Amino acid sequence: MLRFLLFLLLLGGPGALPAPRRRRGAASPTAPYRTRYLRQQIDHFGFDENLTFQQRYLVADQHWKKDNGPILFYTGNEGDITWFCNNTGFMWDVAEELNAMLVFAEHRYYGESLPFGNESFSDSKHLNYLTSEQALADFAVLVEYLKMTVAGARYSPVIAIGGSYGGMLAAWFRMKYPHAVVGALAASAPIWQFGDLVPCGTYFSIVTNDFKKSGTGCSESIRNSWNAINHLSSTDAGLQWLSSTFHLCSPLKNLQDAAMLKNWLSETWINLAMVNYPYKADFLQPLPAWPIQACTEMVMPMCTDGVNDMFEPQKWDFDALSEECYKVWGVRPRPSWILSMYGGKNISSHSNIVFSNGGLDPWSAGGVTQNITDSLVAIVIPDGAHHLDLRSRNPLDPKSVQQARALEICYMKQWIEKARHSH
Amino acid sequence: MLRFLLFLLLLGGPGALPAPRRRRGAASPTAPYRTRYLRQQIDHFGFDENLTFQQRYLVADQHWKKDNGPILFYTGNEGDITWFCNNTGFMWDVAEELNAMLVFAEHRYYGESLPFGNESFSDSKHLNYLTSEQALADFAVLVEYLKMTVAGARYSPVIAIGGSYGGMLAAWFRMKYPHAVVGALAASAPIWQFGDLVPCGTYFSIVTNDFKKSGTGCSESIRNSWNAINHLSSTDAGLQWLSSTFHLCSPLKNLQDAAMLKNWLSETWINLAMVNYPYKADFLQPLPAWPIQACTEMVMPMCTDGVNDMFEPQKWDFDALSEECYKVWGVRPRPSWILSMYGGKNISSHSNIVFSNGGLDPWSAGGVTQNITDSLVAIVIPDGAHHLDLRSRNPLDPKSVQQARALEICYMKQWIEKARHSH
Repeated sequence: MLRFLLFLLLLGGPGALPAPRRRRGAASPTAPYRTRYLRQQIDHFGFDENLTFQQRYLVADQHWKKDNGPILFYTGNEGDITWFCNNTGFMWDVAEELNAMLVFAEHRYYGESLPFGNESFSDSKHLNYLTSEQALADFAVLVEYLKMTVAGARYSPVIAIGGSYGGMLAAWFRMKYPHAVVGALAASAPIWQFGDLVPCGTYFSIVTNDFKKSGTGCSESIRNSWNAINHLSSTDAGLQWLSSTFHLCSPLKNLQDAAMLKNWLSETWINLAMVNYPYKADFLQPLPAWPIQACTEMVMPMCTDGVNDMFEPQKWDFDALSEECYKVWGVRPRPSWILSMYGGKNISSHSNIVFSNGGLDPWSAGGVTQNITDSLVAIVIPDGAHHLDLRSRNPLDPKSVQQARALEICYMKQWIEKARHSH
Repeated sequence: MLRFLLFLLLLGGPGALPAPRRRRGAASPTAPYRTRYLRQQIDHFGFDENLTFQQRYLVADQHWKKDNGPILFYTGNEGDITWFCNNTGFMWDVAEELNAMLVFAEHRYYGESLPFGNESFSDSKHLNYLTSEQALADFAVLVEYLKMTVAGARYSPVIAIGGSYGGMLAAWFRMKYPHAVVGALAASAPIWQFGDLVPCGTYFSIVTNDFKKSGTGCSESIRNSWNAINHLSSTDAGLQWLSSTFHLCSPLKNLQDAAMLKNWLSETWINLAMVNYPYKADFLQPLPAWPIQACTEMVMPMCTDGVNDMFEPQKWDFDALSEECYKVWGVRPRPSWILSMYGGKNISSHSNIVFSNGGLDPWSAGGVTQNITDSLVAIVIPDGAHHLDLRSRNPLDPKSVQQARALEICYMKQWIEKARHSH
């Protein structure tokens, strides 16, 4: 059961959060931006097929100081870049203070940045260029292009900012292309949710803790619900009762249907934990999932034991994932590649990265929550859910997120100042 | 004329030096080594085709301290790895002092490490995976594999060492995979011979200076030779005279033939400058050239003016190179990619790289010859030719190369010591 959920989760990845859509009725937090496109190589790492595509990016320079003022560069993750642009209010909030240009770069294979148009998702051949390495190369080429072509930006210090998978990209962008960005803010970025870097069960125990805090008996009720559903599913009357209680459009007919109900419930509990914000956020539109990445390099081990968490016990089963990936996409995951590529826990030689984490966010399980060096800094926001710090300022923000943002701004100013002195 | 030579040169690249073959009659500088193979992905950056090949590497651990003693890791360049193993005597000379294991990793597409066997060079499709990025990924996976599988190597500090293009790889390896190697010795590595990072003519003016130093009127004679050859080539008698004077196997028949003679002469002058060693080195077997890399990412602008150098004037002509590449391989070079990928001159955030340069070596034109930071250090060996420091100790070594090696060893010890303290 849960294996299927995990698979979905993994396909959804850290960004499979309900989409950060503009709050209904609320004023747009964003000022106007311009939409631009840059012709990118589909394959940065091979030269045989010289195919290109148009990468979309958004630019807002109302507050930019044209004499090499800084650029805040959002490293787009799995979704339409306008969603992230409209829901990363933090960047809009600080643009004036930092005299910064804002750039939101769309991740290839999402939004309008489709390497092969409608064919992009048709098979593993067309999906072959959907990797973090290619996405980072897009970003590096785009940053270089901006510096070369935008008047007054030649020596602009660029700071990468991203949340969730986009936060991983922001951190990795600084690690792999430190000449392109002077620093990175990686919000709720589970860069260690790979291999055996962190226990596979922590993610679900954080979800469980959120429910423990939310009311007496809450997590216990959920833990008990699975057996109750299993029991009810064993009879037609029970299935009927479940169907009517949950107001299902089509009634449950068998154990498979009941398993899907359990998956749906599990996913709901997880999503609620991730978007446990201090104010109403109309977060209902699911982002498109990673269509193939969890089957290639983004292999994030997950497990439950039903003791430290409120879910049905399920061991991490790489072989099952691999079989499923092969069946669906014809590809096999390479779980150790991401460790060889990005260094696992051995990243202390890098610099100028702030990793922020929400204490309520299950993805903090795979995040960097302790300082590694003076310039690889962890921020923990005890009351924060999934990259709350990247959202617009809000009167209901807890003090902890206000402080986190202040600290993030402080680090960004330091990076900018240092870059200025080096020219 | 020279354009064709430049093209050849570029195809040959910085490693198109006459091959470092073992000196005839001299004792082998190398102790025994074991030959090993590791199965590598042909495409590290894509997951559609899951093809693999066997990468060869050589191991010598006679002097290795098995309790996490250091590993000196030669980042193989364009050639059979046994050549480099037998001609990088420096590593063999210091192994005992550093208690180090020696590993020589073969570059994909060379020696026995052929991704598609005999088909590897058949066309641009098969050559598609011959890039520096794929080669570095091979190295990263191999280092990880060694640490995981060799008993006592789990926390061994690894130092990358390479010369010429291999030196570029050593530097880039440290830049891109600092978790894999604690430092790098990049000998005669022209990492700045790209874009407009250095003047395109310096390379040939260094060749010229070598000849100026070697005798009065020497470079002038060579400079005058081109017009003399041109003049002689305009008559049958002149062509005949040239053919007999140079003892040519087949006589020159026309201007094209004479142009080939001039190319051959130019190449000879360049090679003599590169291997201007203080002792007899039997360096006659040419390395296989980069079969396609100069047509993809390794675009090194070169030019001559006949004033600051002794060659016929020839501007750098990218368009001509591009046309030639398209005609020969069906690919177009991307001259700016290497700058986006490896940062050009903006590399100060990296650490622990020693760049050594020979003052006699034309490739020092594109090398790092000034310290960038305390841990990005340049060493210049005024009397040194192309990576003389990587060769075995020799009684005829000038003091400058002895000191350079001593300094290199000093830095390596510091990196090793620091790594030890971090565990």
